[in-house]
Amino acid sequence: MVDVVILLDYWPSMFGVRTRIALEEKNIKFDYREQDLCNKSALLLEMNPVHKKIPVLIHNGKPVCESLIQVEYIDETWPMEYPLLPSDPYQRAHARFWGDFIDKMLPGLGKLMWGAKSVEQESGKKEFIDMLKTVEFELGDKTYFGGETFGYVDIALIGFYGWFDAFEKYGNFSIEAECPTIIAWAKRCVKRDSVAKSLPDSEKVIELIPELKKKKRVE
Amino acid sequence: MVDVVILLDYWPSMFGVRTRIALEEKNIKFDYREQDLCNKSALLLEMNPVHKKIPVLIHNGKPVCESLIQVEYIDETWPMEYPLLPSDPYQRAHARFWGDFIDKMLPGLGKLMWGAKSVEQESGKKEFIDMLKTVEFELGDKTYFGGETFGYVDIALIGFYGWFDAFEKYGNFSIEAECPTIIAWAKRCVKRDSVAKSLPDSEKVIELIPELKKKKRVE
Repeated sequence: MVDVVILLDYWPSMFGVRTRIALEEKNIKFDYREQDLCNKSALLLEMNPVHKKIPVLIHNGKPVCESLIQVEYIDETWPMEYPLLPSDPYQRAHARFWGDFIDKMLPGLGKLMWGAKSVEQESGKKEFIDMLKTVEFELGDKTYFGGETFGYVDIALIGFYGWFDAFEKYGNFSIEAECPTIIAWAKRCVKRDSVAKSLPDSEKVIELIPELKKKKRVE
Repeated sequence: MVDVVILLDYWPSMFGVRTRIALEEKNIKFDYREQDLCNKSALLLEMNPVHKKIPVLIHNGKPVCESLIQVEYIDETWPMEYPLLPSDPYQRAHARFWGDFIDKMLPGLGKLMWGAKSVEQESGKKEFIDMLKTVEFELGDKTYFGGETFGYVDIALIGFYGWFDAFEKYGNFSIEAECPTIIAWAKRCVKRDSVAKSLPDSEKVIELIPELKKKKRVE
């Protein structure tokens, strides 16, 4: 049976990037379908009726939702190509812990980017920097989070990298000044084809922010 | 090598319950160590330096944090005893999706239980009921979330059951009136030794709430 893989996604999504990278690492051809989030398609609503959000991975007609769950699904479905999670249960749990921790940075980032008041934005920025420093400490002097090979935790974090310039511009700070090791790591990651192909253009993300801010306010 | 398994936990924890049940289902003997969360032990701080929270599962000296990650770790480490997650990658992704969804009920429950204003409590209650109805729809007429066998999603949700009476009392509503199928499912789960042994006493949880409210306010 030939696999039919469809990805419902939206180009700036830091979550969609994770799934795109995982598919690229596994050399899986997929049909990328850009979604209009202001006018959600019948397919998106049918495939993710609970959250109605992208990314949705559709494999042979069946949907998988939530980006980190998609990355694990991709790893388990195509186990022979480039493993994304370690095989040892303890190391797997460790990777999942850091994937989960990275997702816990979102409330801070939400306040930083969409906060209505500057005091809220400042507190979001502080939360984000503190958490990114914790992630940086975990990386330490390793090449990638899992050691010498690019994998699950790298995929979880690099999704945010296309937004770093936007965070810096709207938060008025330098991530490199705060977390130089993270920036060096991100530059290594971007050398991989899977990442370079999947990340959104930082400039375009910055251009999009005013529009997104307007939409957030309407919501 | 004999496995040494320690669980740092706090008796009313809906998260700790998950890990206790998973260990019981696998027939793993463990050393339960009750933690004083107002005066955190050196062991807790050493084993979970990032979040400093219970439950922490310590297996042969190495910590695993976050309850659903612990459940997966337990399943992967002792795969021969009673499987908790399905073996099929698609069904595993489906179970993980619902585990994640159940954790997304927490902000609503937080507002319901610890909200400073009644408008906040009401909105938390509504969020919780809406989400629990979605979970109930997923359960449908199945015996357990995975079908005929008790597993990962059941463990994720039943952790909350010891708190249901407290939610009802403080939210002034009946979960059974809103979600009768969930209550019938919970009563089935409680017949399992692993669950009966692990759930906190509802009466004691209710008695504890004023003290917890006071602490939340101080924080």
